[in-house]
Amino acid sequence: MPTPQTDPPSVRQQALADVLLPDGDGLIPAIAQQHDTGEVLMMAWMNRVSIGETLVTGRVCYWSRSRGRLWRKGETSGQFQRLVEMRLDCDGDTLLLLVDQVGVACHTGRRSCFYRAVQGGQLHEIAAPAVDPDLLYGVGHSHG
Amino acid sequence: MPTPQTDPPSVRQQALADVLLPDGDGLIPAIAQQHDTGEVLMMAWMNRVSIGETLVTGRVCYWSRSRGRLWRKGETSGQFQRLVEMRLDCDGDTLLLLVDQVGVACHTGRRSCFYRAVQGGQLHEIAAPAVDPDLLYGVGHSHG
Repeated sequence: MPTPQTDPPSVRQQALADVLLPDGDGLIPAIAQQHDTGEVLMMAWMNRVSIGETLVTGRVCYWSRSRGRLWRKGETSGQFQRLVEMRLDCDGDTLLLLVDQVGVACHTGRRSCFYRAVQGGQLHEIAAPAVDPDLLYGVGHSHG
Repeated sequence: MPTPQTDPPSVRQQALADVLLPDGDGLIPAIAQQHDTGEVLMMAWMNRVSIGETLVTGRVCYWSRSRGRLWRKGETSGQFQRLVEMRLDCDGDTLLLLVDQVGVACHTGRRSCFYRAVQGGQLHEIAAPAVDPDLLYGVGHSHG
């Protein structure tokens, strides 16, 4: 008879909910990284509700601190993030989201939010917008 | 006569100190990424002093929230991070550090702190320690 498949003893399993350590506001920073190129796209915040929705739908949902509500990334701009894998760090207080980014991650129209590099104490722009943000959000809008 | 070299008009320069937006505690999250492989190693916190020291010395210095003091990464373990480039995000409230990591970034002895992946609501270890943490910190120690 075939033996049932089990994880090797070295692989310990824990429930995500038991290990998460959000801050005093119930939030946890989440880094979004393009899964195949390794590019770090952005950092935003999640809470237990947005984490659950993201895992269930496979589309990344953050918590917007400025708007005080769930932020379904791409809901305005169409620039969605498909979740490939969610990882947690050693302390349980930071998430790494491997994603497939549709279009651009940054509200400025750039692929990544980290488009400024420090050189001699000055910030230099190292990436230009790939798309006009007015086309993503409408004139005068921001984020989404 | 040769004209003086200037940046093209499209390159806007700003002083880092003028654009940084730390949180109410004066802290800003900093993501450390291995500069050549793209691996996200860890997330920790910096303040203006640790940012300044990092830029001057070229060795990454964080602010330890648990210990309430500067944390010169590797000071105990020898697992230093050499700064290759510091980047800032669009909102001015998150740093991305491109680093060259000596040895391992994680206090568990793993290369990256993000060694657990969520599968079906459970965390699975996807990376084993590369080195015994007792060898880095001494028995009973943590972090550094």
